[in-house]
Amino acid sequence: MTFPSELIPFFTPQGVAVIGASANPEKLGYGVIQNLLRSGYPGPIYPVNPKKDEVLGLKAYPDILSVPDPVDLAVIIIPAPAVPQAVQACGQRGVRAVAILSGGFAETGEAGQALQDAVLATAREFGIRLVGPNGVGVLNPHSGLNTTFIEEIPEPGSVAFLSQSGALGGALIDWARGQGLGLSYFASLGNAADLTETDFIRALHHDPHTHVIALYVESIHHGPEFMATVREVAGHTPVLALKAGVTEAGARAVASHTASLGGSDEAYGAAFRQAGAVRVQSVQELFETAMALAYRQPPKGPGVAVLTNAGGPAAVAEDALARQGLQAPEPSEATRQALRQALGEYPQLMNPIDMLGAASAPEYEAAARVLLQSDEYDAVLAILVPNTANDPEAVAAALARAAAQSDKPVYACYMGDVSVRAGRQRLHQHRIPTFDFPENAAMALANALRWHRIHESPPAAAPQPDLSAYEPLRQAIQDLARSGHRYLTEAALYPLLEQAGFPLPAWVAAYTQRAAQAFASNFPGLFAVKVLSPDILHKSDIKGVMLNVPADQVGKAYWEVQARVRRRAPKAGLQGALIQQMAPPGTEVIVGMRRDPVFGPVILFGGGGMYVEAWRDVAFGIAPLTEQDIRTMLQETVVGRLLLRGARGHGPGDVTALMALMQKVAALALAVPELAEFELNPVVVHPAGQGVTVVDARAVLAT
Amino acid sequence: MTFPSELIPFFTPQGVAVIGASANPEKLGYGVIQNLLRSGYPGPIYPVNPKKDEVLGLKAYPDILSVPDPVDLAVIIIPAPAVPQAVQACGQRGVRAVAILSGGFAETGEAGQALQDAVLATAREFGIRLVGPNGVGVLNPHSGLNTTFIEEIPEPGSVAFLSQSGALGGALIDWARGQGLGLSYFASLGNAADLTETDFIRALHHDPHTHVIALYVESIHHGPEFMATVREVAGHTPVLALKAGVTEAGARAVASHTASLGGSDEAYGAAFRQAGAVRVQSVQELFETAMALAYRQPPKGPGVAVLTNAGGPAAVAEDALARQGLQAPEPSEATRQALRQALGEYPQLMNPIDMLGAASAPEYEAAARVLLQSDEYDAVLAILVPNTANDPEAVAAALARAAAQSDKPVYACYMGDVSVRAGRQRLHQHRIPTFDFPENAAMALANALRWHRIHESPPAAAPQPDLSAYEPLRQAIQDLARSGHRYLTEAALYPLLEQAGFPLPAWVAAYTQRAAQAFASNFPGLFAVKVLSPDILHKSDIKGVMLNVPADQVGKAYWEVQARVRRRAPKAGLQGALIQQMAPPGTEVIVGMRRDPVFGPVILFGGGGMYVEAWRDVAFGIAPLTEQDIRTMLQETVVGRLLLRGARGHGPGDVTALMALMQKVAALALAVPELAEFELNPVVVHPAGQGVTVVDARAVLAT
Repeated sequence: MTFPSELIPFFTPQGVAVIGASANPEKLGYGVIQNLLRSGYPGPIYPVNPKKDEVLGLKAYPDILSVPDPVDLAVIIIPAPAVPQAVQACGQRGVRAVAILSGGFAETGEAGQALQDAVLATAREFGIRLVGPNGVGVLNPHSGLNTTFIEEIPEPGSVAFLSQSGALGGALIDWARGQGLGLSYFASLGNAADLTETDFIRALHHDPHTHVIALYVESIHHGPEFMATVREVAGHTPVLALKAGVTEAGARAVASHTASLGGSDEAYGAAFRQAGAVRVQSVQELFETAMALAYRQPPKGPGVAVLTNAGGPAAVAEDALARQGLQAPEPSEATRQALRQALGEYPQLMNPIDMLGAASAPEYEAAARVLLQSDEYDAVLAILVPNTANDPEAVAAALARAAAQSDKPVYACYMGDVSVRAGRQRLHQHRIPTFDFPENAAMALANALRWHRIHESPPAAAPQPDLSAYEPLRQAIQDLARSGHRYLTEAALYPLLEQAGFPLPAWVAAYTQRAAQAFASNFPGLFAVKVLSPDILHKSDIKGVMLNVPADQVGKAYWEVQARVRRRAPKAGLQGALIQQMAPPGTEVIVGMRRDPVFGPVILFGGGGMYVEAWRDVAFGIAPLTEQDIRTMLQETVVGRLLLRGARGHGPGDVTALMALMQKVAALALAVPELAEFELNPVVVHPAGQGVTVVDARAVLAT
Repeated sequence: MTFPSELIPFFTPQGVAVIGASANPEKLGYGVIQNLLRSGYPGPIYPVNPKKDEVLGLKAYPDILSVPDPVDLAVIIIPAPAVPQAVQACGQRGVRAVAILSGGFAETGEAGQALQDAVLATAREFGIRLVGPNGVGVLNPHSGLNTTFIEEIPEPGSVAFLSQSGALGGALIDWARGQGLGLSYFASLGNAADLTETDFIRALHHDPHTHVIALYVESIHHGPEFMATVREVAGHTPVLALKAGVTEAGARAVASHTASLGGSDEAYGAAFRQAGAVRVQSVQELFETAMALAYRQPPKGPGVAVLTNAGGPAAVAEDALARQGLQAPEPSEATRQALRQALGEYPQLMNPIDMLGAASAPEYEAAARVLLQSDEYDAVLAILVPNTANDPEAVAAALARAAAQSDKPVYACYMGDVSVRAGRQRLHQHRIPTFDFPENAAMALANALRWHRIHESPPAAAPQPDLSAYEPLRQAIQDLARSGHRYLTEAALYPLLEQAGFPLPAWVAAYTQRAAQAFASNFPGLFAVKVLSPDILHKSDIKGVMLNVPADQVGKAYWEVQARVRRRAPKAGLQGALIQQMAPPGTEVIVGMRRDPVFGPVILFGGGGMYVEAWRDVAFGIAPLTEQDIRTMLQETVVGRLLLRGARGHGPGDVTALMALMQKVAALALAVPELAEFELNPVVVHPAGQGVTVVDARAVLAT
């Protein structure tokens, strides 16, 4: 396994030039030189500073052109306006890898964006790859490379961190040093003008030191490429993702920070899930899950034994495990017997296994061994509360001995602070994932299990569906778009959908009462009568819809809906009414599509009916979708679970037909880029074997 | 303000005897004496140990009877079987306050429960008040009292902790020492055989040192008394509550830990809310919110300014604030102007106010002053990521200076670990609430605001409703219960409900087709026809209900439902059919009641219809209810919010009638204890001014 050759200088460069190196300790260009020296970088370091002969004892050069061989990485930390020229000089000197630490580019507005575009154009001209601008560079503790000005230097380890915030990199490094956790790599992506998170994920897949990839992103730069790359990597190396800018306030902060734009949170959620990234929701969760996966193999199932010297924290742990979807099964009789032999007659041989306050290191060790060997547990969570009668450091060593004999993980929660600091350090030295509170341990365990399941069955890429069947529909929609249509009424849309095989009820667009009545006489059952008008988006709001109309009343209803709308919206142009057969009973759902600026077509599935918007019982998927993607979407919603399993008095719905319909919407989205939004609402899902009926549809065309 | 006199010895005793004092440092009875000595307890300490003349340099006594005056608190730490006799001896000696640290009582099973009952009986006989058993005693840093064997001793401070887990007390104390946070009191309630959380909450209300009461409970012992007490205290002193045993697994752990039983989590949630306790969901949240409220006045509104030297963590903070329901408004032009004067022309004068990596202490101070003085902010959250160019300790002092000039709080988040430890200590010294991650700061800010709102308008106790109107109904239900009824069919229940003024549609229990048809001819509209059988709980499941039946079809439907049920449940006894007029359109909801073993009658409100159980769109309240309690219940559900505000195409519902119905159910629950469960499902809520209709009802009688 090797790195892509053009990225090698960002991992193991043969000589580093620092353009903007400074002899003034208050300048960041001083910190970079200092860090390169302190991190033990073995190659030559070339300060570039036209005003100095020497920086920190190193010979300085007036410009990059005068720097001797070997040099294949340049770090630029000079004011933004001077950066384009510096990049050009790098190109002329033959340097093909540049990390720009300077700020003042796209994150500051239009002028900055133009400057960034100019830098990128120059880089492209010379075949230069860029990291940044507006970042803090890269750091490889294994090769001694550190182009950042972060104060502290991490130990070499196995967690790689890719961050669109340099400061979060500094925070992780400082936190990791406190824990004793090592890092394998850190890249501060900044504005990611050229190299993105995706490029580094791909490269880290080949890094023998990296066992966990942690990601802080404010936006993803090329959605489909990101998904394809993570899909390749995530079964082998866990990819943890924290996305900022989830809320409106967060999105505003993000936009002004790294010029990150757009993409809905739902689309990010779907993309992470479909690609196999483990999404986390807080910085602490990101750091602690990375630590847990770096230290230990994940649990292979949800069964957790809680081993404790204190009942209250164990009860809290049991709650937390259950909330995370983990289980705390009771010990089997055999395990209980083995615990009795190991511990004597303790009152509590349930789960939690409460060994009471004074529990000793040998007791922790013996009990942990029994639990790790039992079939009913996939992991042990050991809780310790310090008191005068116990020894947290000895317990740490005891847990490590037990853990060494098993491929199941042991996690620890030492509660308190002052009295357990040394014990926590020992746990970290033994690579026992360690948490201050039981809730955090439960969360990391759950995330590790999520990754284990991705590892066991990595998500597959969806095959590109055959779109040829949608070509006539695309032609028709292109024509409509060209002739200025923005919204399509049912009368325009239904024929197209019928042609593409969507399951519609019998219908007719009637422009006379006679036509309406004649249609109804041909079909059994009841009818819906809906006013037709290109000017009315929400027909029901102005009483433009009548449902359950008997056949002999359809003519009357034809006039009635038009009369009602004329009263309420006198200016709307009316085009008669749409008459359609009422669908047989079933469960109402929505299937929709919209386009995400980052990930492309997003398919929506959710519960239908009046409350749907308030409920938000919806799930999202990025097209194209695998069958598994669709099943997961159904599982994520209440209505989907009811359709899969049935409810009291109701058997399961026709999930096969529903899934086929969702695939059809996904294919339509891919085949017809002119379709900006598309919604089938409601779709009635009939009992298993009886299909689905699209009862209403609307489409918005791209302008 | 004074303590209840019988509790004074648990706060400021005049002499403490330790029954089971030991000279062996490995025994807990040694730790207690040692802690009394180390905590600077000023009164006499009397070790009681028949085998020793001296313990830790103190004269020991063979028994409590031989202990001289003054002594008004005894600590018992001897094996459980010897405890009853020791308590008796305390009674004979005239000691009226006893803390039992020994385990082996109710938490171990029936025999232990009997022993605990015996201890309690003896205590009652002598007028002794007990803390414990199965706890670690009490601790008052202000008076130097420490009857625990917890290793470390907290600083005097203003947080009181009442805990049903002694170990969590130990954890809090150890954590608080690490932070530099002081405690005012700690009581380990253990099995709470006599004195409970409620007794101590009442006492702490009078403790001048206590500004925050933090509670860890596995169960509440007397629900209504707890609610009444918290209601008195919580407007003045914040009461934070963490409840364990929320999930099934947690409840199991709790039962075996402190013999805590029962009470649904929903009832706890309602009780905390109605009494004005701030419920938290994790140990870390409990500790950190207590620290925040101990250090600073709460924010008086939701507007938070994020002041930062790093964009990524600030973006994360903005997300976290929004998720917690807080706001991060943009600065006004005046504030922006003032910031410009204070900081110069920074790129980011939005919110977050990003002063970039090298932000200095004077800059933090100047900006914090401006923000604290502005009208648009209620709090400042200052974020710092360490780097070579900043000084976390100086920034801490700067923030403290700014905070001292304002009654708005400043919270801080110093990210990382090693490089910010000293800075964090400084923040704690200055009583600036300090958090490792932005998400935790946002959570504590939100909790502090929740308390501020309780402080501003403390929840009122609901007046006891007039129950006399329900007396006939109670008589009837007692008769039914006596005659062996367990479930009531509509035919039995409807007349009672009608009599009590519940809004039912026109209905008749028809025992012949002729009667069914005759009834229908008297009313307009459509009808529901439901089979009547005492053996069938869920009529719809076996097609025993027909809806929307036209009047002339009712006779036919009468036979039809019986025929259907006969096919599907041949053994069920049939008693004709209930015919009722269909309700006018509206929104379907459920109003129900069940009895909680801890809190009594719990009223349920939620969305109705087929999916309601899956959705769990429900809220709970403990009867009796104030109007505000009911409004809050409506606000907590999607359906309730829709009824209050209306939805697209639908105006608001008749919330007045709905609230009256909920009050009626609450009154019924209080008036008729023989009613075990009661459910109106569905209730149709008509548009505002048009009332509600109870469409179906069921009742379960207490056995």
